[in-house]
Amino acid sequence: MSVEAAVAVFDAKRDAFLADLETFLRFESISTQSEHTQDMQHCASWVRDQLASAGLDAQVLPTAGHPVVFADSGPVPSGQPALTLLFYGHYDVQPPGDLKLWNSPPFDPTIRDGAVYARGSADDKGPVMTHLAAMRCWRETHPHLPVRVKFITEGEEEIGSPNLPGFVREHADQLSCDYVVLSDSTKLDADTPALAYACRGLVYKEMTVDGPSHDLHSGQYGGAVANPGNVLAAIIASLHDAKGKVTIFGFYDDVVPLTDKERELLAEVGLNDAQLLERTGSPAPTGEHGYSTAERYCARPTLDVNGLTGGYAGEGAATIIPSRAIAKVSMRLVAHQDPARISKAFDEAVRQACPPTVKLAIKNYAHCRAYVAPTDSPGMQAAIKALADSYGRPPVLTREGGTLPILPLFKEVLGADSLLLGFIVPDCNLHSPNEFFCLRDFDIGTRVILRFLAGIADQTARANQA
Amino acid sequence: MSVEAAVAVFDAKRDAFLADLETFLRFESISTQSEHTQDMQHCASWVRDQLASAGLDAQVLPTAGHPVVFADSGPVPSGQPALTLLFYGHYDVQPPGDLKLWNSPPFDPTIRDGAVYARGSADDKGPVMTHLAAMRCWRETHPHLPVRVKFITEGEEEIGSPNLPGFVREHADQLSCDYVVLSDSTKLDADTPALAYACRGLVYKEMTVDGPSHDLHSGQYGGAVANPGNVLAAIIASLHDAKGKVTIFGFYDDVVPLTDKERELLAEVGLNDAQLLERTGSPAPTGEHGYSTAERYCARPTLDVNGLTGGYAGEGAATIIPSRAIAKVSMRLVAHQDPARISKAFDEAVRQACPPTVKLAIKNYAHCRAYVAPTDSPGMQAAIKALADSYGRPPVLTREGGTLPILPLFKEVLGADSLLLGFIVPDCNLHSPNEFFCLRDFDIGTRVILRFLAGIADQTARANQA
Repeated sequence: MSVEAAVAVFDAKRDAFLADLETFLRFESISTQSEHTQDMQHCASWVRDQLASAGLDAQVLPTAGHPVVFADSGPVPSGQPALTLLFYGHYDVQPPGDLKLWNSPPFDPTIRDGAVYARGSADDKGPVMTHLAAMRCWRETHPHLPVRVKFITEGEEEIGSPNLPGFVREHADQLSCDYVVLSDSTKLDADTPALAYACRGLVYKEMTVDGPSHDLHSGQYGGAVANPGNVLAAIIASLHDAKGKVTIFGFYDDVVPLTDKERELLAEVGLNDAQLLERTGSPAPTGEHGYSTAERYCARPTLDVNGLTGGYAGEGAATIIPSRAIAKVSMRLVAHQDPARISKAFDEAVRQACPPTVKLAIKNYAHCRAYVAPTDSPGMQAAIKALADSYGRPPVLTREGGTLPILPLFKEVLGADSLLLGFIVPDCNLHSPNEFFCLRDFDIGTRVILRFLAGIADQTARANQA
Repeated sequence: MSVEAAVAVFDAKRDAFLADLETFLRFESISTQSEHTQDMQHCASWVRDQLASAGLDAQVLPTAGHPVVFADSGPVPSGQPALTLLFYGHYDVQPPGDLKLWNSPPFDPTIRDGAVYARGSADDKGPVMTHLAAMRCWRETHPHLPVRVKFITEGEEEIGSPNLPGFVREHADQLSCDYVVLSDSTKLDADTPALAYACRGLVYKEMTVDGPSHDLHSGQYGGAVANPGNVLAAIIASLHDAKGKVTIFGFYDDVVPLTDKERELLAEVGLNDAQLLERTGSPAPTGEHGYSTAERYCARPTLDVNGLTGGYAGEGAATIIPSRAIAKVSMRLVAHQDPARISKAFDEAVRQACPPTVKLAIKNYAHCRAYVAPTDSPGMQAAIKALADSYGRPPVLTREGGTLPILPLFKEVLGADSLLLGFIVPDCNLHSPNEFFCLRDFDIGTRVILRFLAGIADQTARANQA
């Protein structure tokens, strides 16, 4: 089993693979716009054909929304390592936005300055193409893939994957795997590969405080009725203490403390205070006492106001007592906080902080568990080695401050950890005009996948022999 | 000096006076709409002519906006009581709003059910007409008015009297008087006359809290930067304690405590809890501990949020840290709180409550002193008697929870207290469609003014003799 033969095939046929990527990028697979429903179907079929040409049994499966492409290389021949990888990706893209801001048309891929510019080039078609190219190169040099490989390529990532959880639960047996592999994440910078091993969870709430049945004249009634604006402010204020800790009862109970090793890692790879201020424009860093900036934004749970509304918002002054005030508030969770438990504790804290002089309604939006994977699993070790060998330097292990609902979904339903092999640079204009994918990362990324396949197969075989 | 002769003249010519009121009501004197500038001038001239026909020296004086009608009966002949009354009123009206909601055209006065329906009938042309009619009836039966009488009838009350303070300061000598008399206030109910002796002051602020230079992803940075929404909520919450008291340092220092008599009066004439809930739709009464509902809404200082804005206000969820959050907050003041001092104390309290992790800007809007008049002055006594004799029951003494900037203005510049002889009913559709003025109040109101003139002249003469 020689990975270098497969790499040589890639190098020889690289321009053909790049042409395939350009074909992939020409599909206007914009999931949020119904006029592109046909483009979505054509794009899904194209992905299926690519997988079929790598010898996988590939099919386009319907959902209530856009279809999912599912493929399976089938049971491994006896004697081969019994390990299954599930490659996740998405073929849908964000709308291009204002066309005038693009230097070349978003769906007419253009090569310049060592990168391919097009909508979806970085998110996620370029990275998906490295997966597809790797499978084809391997199969041109080997009778079988070295482990069992499955693909799930969805068409609704950019609209929040509304049908994915149902699909995964329904097809749990077909999707069963040891690891999920995805490349829908960034490197630390152009030269430093990254392997994210955790992301935060999310509980999102909307609180509506109703007081008088209509806006009142603040002179006529001010002082004698509860003002929903003042009450809402007091509720929000009650949710933090002076040390930046969330006061909700039991909020930190299930939080897994950071290990010294994790803290060292974050100190090394996370933003420092100066970088934070430069990127956010905030006047000063702040947050939970006892934690560094990097720990605060990705490894500790938080509670943030996302929106405030109530009363008179126009120019000048209006002397009213608003009948209603609303706050959108979200919490980022870390392992092993349970979103259901946190959601309930939030409601209880808010109800306790709310006086009986107003009516309070709480609405639930997103609700997602945090995700954290062991950094010493065989899969993680193989991923680190593949990245290090291909990029010439080891990846940094990072935590995502944001929320990737698919990670806890795959963990919960399939019992599988995810390996986030990121090939795109952080400033690749994701969701913005002039999105691009560096050709260097196309070349190296494909090598990473090939080496990862070979590495994890070797490792598994050795483990089985031992 | 027989007031009954003047009353008899009114009764005899009442229909002619009513026709004059209808003429007054036909002017489309809408101060906020520039296409009515000519109507405003014609209306001012008509008021001037009415005053001239009562023997006053009347003139239309320009301001930077709509003109003021000023009139003066001149020095009293020797032997007459040396007392001067300044009658205040306004000839401008609110826009009519949606014409389809009017049962008869707003500028075509219509008599039905014992009332005249038209825009401005209650606010303030009907009451002003009682003043004009009283002067003319007196002069038809007497060679002179019984005291010196001046009139100031402005054309910008409905747009906040922007030019009145300057006008009053500039013409302070001409306007000098012992009492200001106005009827731009309501009775307690249809049968009970009211005499308001106090109104609250106002300090209006807008706080802008700026954090990051742009909205941030709450996953990416949440926990590491100050969230303007959370900070603003904490600032607002810090301004009240658990007993409903405002925590601003020195806020209550200059508050004149309510006397037992005032508290008894408010218990008698103010809204009770059940009435408050019915009128406001609030779930429960609340406010500063140790005070009744009626005391809270008109006799105690308050602090209310008037508006809240920040971050995502649309449907559903958006996980952002808003770069900015804004609150409009106003305080109602009572005597002798100094708006300048309260304004400064508010700024200091807010700055203290605001962490250095955000930027805070405070904008000032309205700024008005509270007003409270002695209830035992000769003018007040004469007003009580005139109302009692004309309505057949004594007036209730009330405090206005709202703010009437002209009262402290006249007090400050002219040293004169105001007498608020209100003739309109509370539900007269002020500022709404189908505004009306009851003919009974037109008849009784004119008697009140005549009896008040006679009474205060008598009283002053007796005091001078004593």
